Amino acid sequence: MTSEAKASPRQRLLEAAARVSHQYGVGVGVDTLCRAAGVSKRSMYQLFESKGDLLAASLERQADSYVAQLLPMVDDGRSPRERILHVFGRLEEEAGEPDFQGCRYLAAQIELKEQSHPASRMARRVKGNLTAFFRAEAEQGGASDSDLLARQLSLVFDGASARAGVGADRLTGLVTPTVTTLLDAAGMRRR
Amino acid sequence: MTSEAKASPRQRLLEAAARVSHQYGVGVGVDTLCRAAGVSKRSMYQLFESKGDLLAASLERQADSYVAQLLPMVDDGRSPRERILHVFGRLEEEAGEPDFQGCRYLAAQIELKEQSHPASRMARRVKGNLTAFFRAEAEQGGASDSDLLARQLSLVFDGASARAGVGADRLTGLVTPTVTTLLDAAGMRRR
Repeated sequence: MTSEAKASPRQRLLEAAARVSHQYGVGVGVDTLCRAAGVSKRSMYQLFESKGDLLAASLERQADSYVAQLLPMVDDGRSPRERILHVFGRLEEEAGEPDFQGCRYLAAQIELKEQSHPASRMARRVKGNLTAFFRAEAEQGGASDSDLLARQLSLVFDGASARAGVGADRLTGLVTPTVTTLLDAAGMRRR
Repeated sequence: MTSEAKASPRQRLLEAAARVSHQYGVGVGVDTLCRAAGVSKRSMYQLFESKGDLLAASLERQADSYVAQLLPMVDDGRSPRERILHVFGRLEEEAGEPDFQGCRYLAAQIELKEQSHPASRMARRVKGNLTAFFRAEAEQGGASDSDLLARQLSLVFDGASARAGVGADRLTGLVTPTVTTLLDAAGMRRR
């Protein structure tokens, strides 16, 4: 890990935006963001058109690690059913961490309200990739209606991470049985 | 409907808080809230300890109409299964409206981040009542595990309203089949 002092102003802004907006919400002010990054507002506006563009770039930059944390490796030899359950197992693990605040991509969209905001569009794109993963695995696993199953799994994912994020549910004994029921109902092969 | 001019400053603040925080998020400033209500900041602080208390009181005030919009009438003669499906039918209808932004009680909790915030606690209490409704109906309808079913239905409710609120899904053909699958898996009586 590079120390913040050695990182470029751009990197520091992207890292600060990730950290601060996840903690306080995307409504956090430009002053707070710049202070957290140790970068002047002038420099920020030389690097990014607007706070919205900085947030969008920050969300985009985190997408790789988000995907790596959640999704199984490509061609890991497991069945589509197991690969789908892997995602929810990871979510359950993350939700067990004390500082878990739910999916930052869902939170960004809820907080911004405006669907055309650059950060909202970026967040929707990242989550769209998760739905696409579910759809591809559903097709591969012989689901009777892979589009419906992908929408159901996305709904469970967002509902579970939101509820865990606000402390309404700890997810234990909830997510795996729910997903299993939906996989069974869709006729997903057990192997 | 009473005109805003005739409503008391307290009522105007509560109404403005509902409207403005739903539109812009609970991070909206005190100045904006007071301007929307046509009430001075001085008056606001005479009526409420803090913006947080105003938000909490506003969420509490909306709880009755929230419940009335979603829940079936007490003892309406329908089966627990039908009464549960009623809630999701209402959610689907609401989600079809052009200005739908998802459940304000979930949004408030996600936006505030802080679970001990008065408005967060109020929101959690209102949503807890929804889970309690599901649990009571699940017991009444013979669910094998009424606590699990209530958690599942709450998860679907929040996931569906969040996804519809951010424009990720329109819910058509999604919510009723999902809930039906979970009710069947829980062994809820069909009548």
